[in-house]
Amino acid sequence: MYASQMYELGAEPNIIRKIFEYSQKRCNEIGEENVFDFCIGNPNVPTPEGFHKAIRELISQKNDYFLHGYTSNAGDQETKRAIAADLNTRYQTSFHEDNFYMTCGATASLRISVEALCEDGDEFITFTPFFPEYRVFVETAGASLVTVETNPDSFQIDFDNLKPAFSEHTKGIIINSPNNPSGVVFSEKSIRTLAGILKDKSEEYGHPIFLISDEPYRELVYDGLKVPFLTKYYDNTLVCYSFSKCMSIPGERIGYILIPDEVENHKSIHAAICGAGRALGYVCAPSLMQHVIAKCAGEVADIELYKKNRDFMYQALTSYGYECIYPNGAFYMFVKAMEEDAAAFCDKAKELELLMVPSDSFGCSGYVRISYCVPLKRIERALPAFQALAKKYQS
Amino acid sequence: MYASQMYELGAEPNIIRKIFEYSQKRCNEIGEENVFDFCIGNPNVPTPEGFHKAIRELISQKNDYFLHGYTSNAGDQETKRAIAADLNTRYQTSFHEDNFYMTCGATASLRISVEALCEDGDEFITFTPFFPEYRVFVETAGASLVTVETNPDSFQIDFDNLKPAFSEHTKGIIINSPNNPSGVVFSEKSIRTLAGILKDKSEEYGHPIFLISDEPYRELVYDGLKVPFLTKYYDNTLVCYSFSKCMSIPGERIGYILIPDEVENHKSIHAAICGAGRALGYVCAPSLMQHVIAKCAGEVADIELYKKNRDFMYQALTSYGYECIYPNGAFYMFVKAMEEDAAAFCDKAKELELLMVPSDSFGCSGYVRISYCVPLKRIERALPAFQALAKKYQS
Repeated sequence: MYASQMYELGAEPNIIRKIFEYSQKRCNEIGEENVFDFCIGNPNVPTPEGFHKAIRELISQKNDYFLHGYTSNAGDQETKRAIAADLNTRYQTSFHEDNFYMTCGATASLRISVEALCEDGDEFITFTPFFPEYRVFVETAGASLVTVETNPDSFQIDFDNLKPAFSEHTKGIIINSPNNPSGVVFSEKSIRTLAGILKDKSEEYGHPIFLISDEPYRELVYDGLKVPFLTKYYDNTLVCYSFSKCMSIPGERIGYILIPDEVENHKSIHAAICGAGRALGYVCAPSLMQHVIAKCAGEVADIELYKKNRDFMYQALTSYGYECIYPNGAFYMFVKAMEEDAAAFCDKAKELELLMVPSDSFGCSGYVRISYCVPLKRIERALPAFQALAKKYQS
Repeated sequence: MYASQMYELGAEPNIIRKIFEYSQKRCNEIGEENVFDFCIGNPNVPTPEGFHKAIRELISQKNDYFLHGYTSNAGDQETKRAIAADLNTRYQTSFHEDNFYMTCGATASLRISVEALCEDGDEFITFTPFFPEYRVFVETAGASLVTVETNPDSFQIDFDNLKPAFSEHTKGIIINSPNNPSGVVFSEKSIRTLAGILKDKSEEYGHPIFLISDEPYRELVYDGLKVPFLTKYYDNTLVCYSFSKCMSIPGERIGYILIPDEVENHKSIHAAICGAGRALGYVCAPSLMQHVIAKCAGEVADIELYKKNRDFMYQALTSYGYECIYPNGAFYMFVKAMEEDAAAFCDKAKELELLMVPSDSFGCSGYVRISYCVPLKRIERALPAFQALAKKYQS
């Protein structure tokens, strides 16, 4: 009497959401200060200065019809121009408003892009570890997800693993750097090599292979690192962006798909994206938020707070004996579980009210993801639990 | 290299959107005051009093994490409680927060509901005239749309037409009252008869047939008319609601699906709806808007302005010789085209800068839809054009 696949997706929500719901329940039971929740990527630093200012100005200066009326399906022109101008300044690109399709966040951006591109039998490649919803988006669009292991020591791309993953059915490759869950940023050298391979494979199979860049964490990098801006390295790149993380507004569902002029048949791809948005029930991205972005595109929340958390936590955890790749970006640490079964490790952590996400759903076993976008106090209060957990394995 | 169906949906947007885009272009060319655009259902009356007040209060009193962070996939509990309380007061129902799934508007509500219910070979019935996107939502979910003609004199349900439309594959029936595009409200008698037939047919085929009520215009009724609240007439009813029209905020994309306890297997249906939302790329409904709704659920914009427009326009158009069913609800008039081909009629109107939507895409030939949610001045200025258009056919 209903779609069994949908029931399963709903009855068994992704593990992050599941722990999130458990955490909310547990907080109600024993108080928020006693639950050490490191599970969800819900930014905790305040929105950038211009954000509420923009809301206040807009609702006092503009009429309701402008503020809250429908925009074009692809988004408000002024908003798209503001985003283009910001990117052009930061990356010396030359985007214009028609390169954009405004969306309800990066999840919608990705899901719509896959739907727009997907033909029967298509395959999309991604690297482990990866955001678990990729599988849902690719499979519910009717395609298959092919996963490729990264280098286990660095989580950088392993090109020997990558090459055999291509086939004539490969429609695209989804990359996510800075990476959720590892916090790793792919090096410029890796991106250049990847672009070369994609070009070769596109020629070999006689059709473009798209680079779909899921980059909600683009601005969240530390230690002076620069994230290569992918459209400059490979023509057939679609950028799936969200303002969720850089502006600390994940609940607002506002982002975009960028389809540069360099994309083969870019006008048709843009049309297919509009069509996919329509088919999936989107009408336009939330209008007030679009107008806010028009006023403060490019503003970023104070990410120094994340850096502080990272430094403090990395130092503490490694001193207790935890192993972890040094995370340069996003707000995640990917820590080796102290037993083979990451889920069992997380269960032991849970007994200490420590909530982390086991890595299995990220397509990679033996790790846990720790989101450090939390109040520093929570990290401080959680340290004894982390220490006690480590001790359980060290005796 | 991309999905041809998506390309077609994007390259050929629905006709309302197409005229909307033309109108924006034409306004830039000859000035807004010279374009008589009656094509889109973009509410033009101000938002209700509490709406901006709620935004101002929220952003001055609450922290960013609360305001703009993720909510649960199904929506913020307080928001859902406020909606339940409002409905319970108005309709003497007994809904609770777990009966709701918050969405990005009625379009998302409908698309998600169909996805959640749809199994191979399913059929959904709807009545003509109907919102053209129904076909897109049903067909992209993999089902077929079966259309049933209403009574041509009243646009009320014609039960003789309805009965043969059922089959063992019928999963649901989508109704929309007050109706877009006709402005007609289905009578309580019709609803009772419909409920009886649905009950009989469910028994006959041995599975529930869902009544999916698309009701963004629920509060927009005039002349003291009452819209029957459907969950009270038929158990297996899913309500797809949007705050777009009642609060004049169509760009904000905020609405819900209501799954009453009386729905067979309501918990599983709720789970399938959560799963469908996930599969289609939704994460949560926009958070600030959810919190705003928590504060002002039940507030309605000043619909007296629509009534004034309707009275004025109905009187004027009929005096020029136009024929039209008296519209009791929504903000549409469905006027008989003065030649058989409604599209040709609209083309002649367009020469007079008069923009209306031909009825063919609503599954019904020979009519035009006029949206009267426009400034009264536009109606006044447009009257000579309406008169001139009628004269072309009367000479």
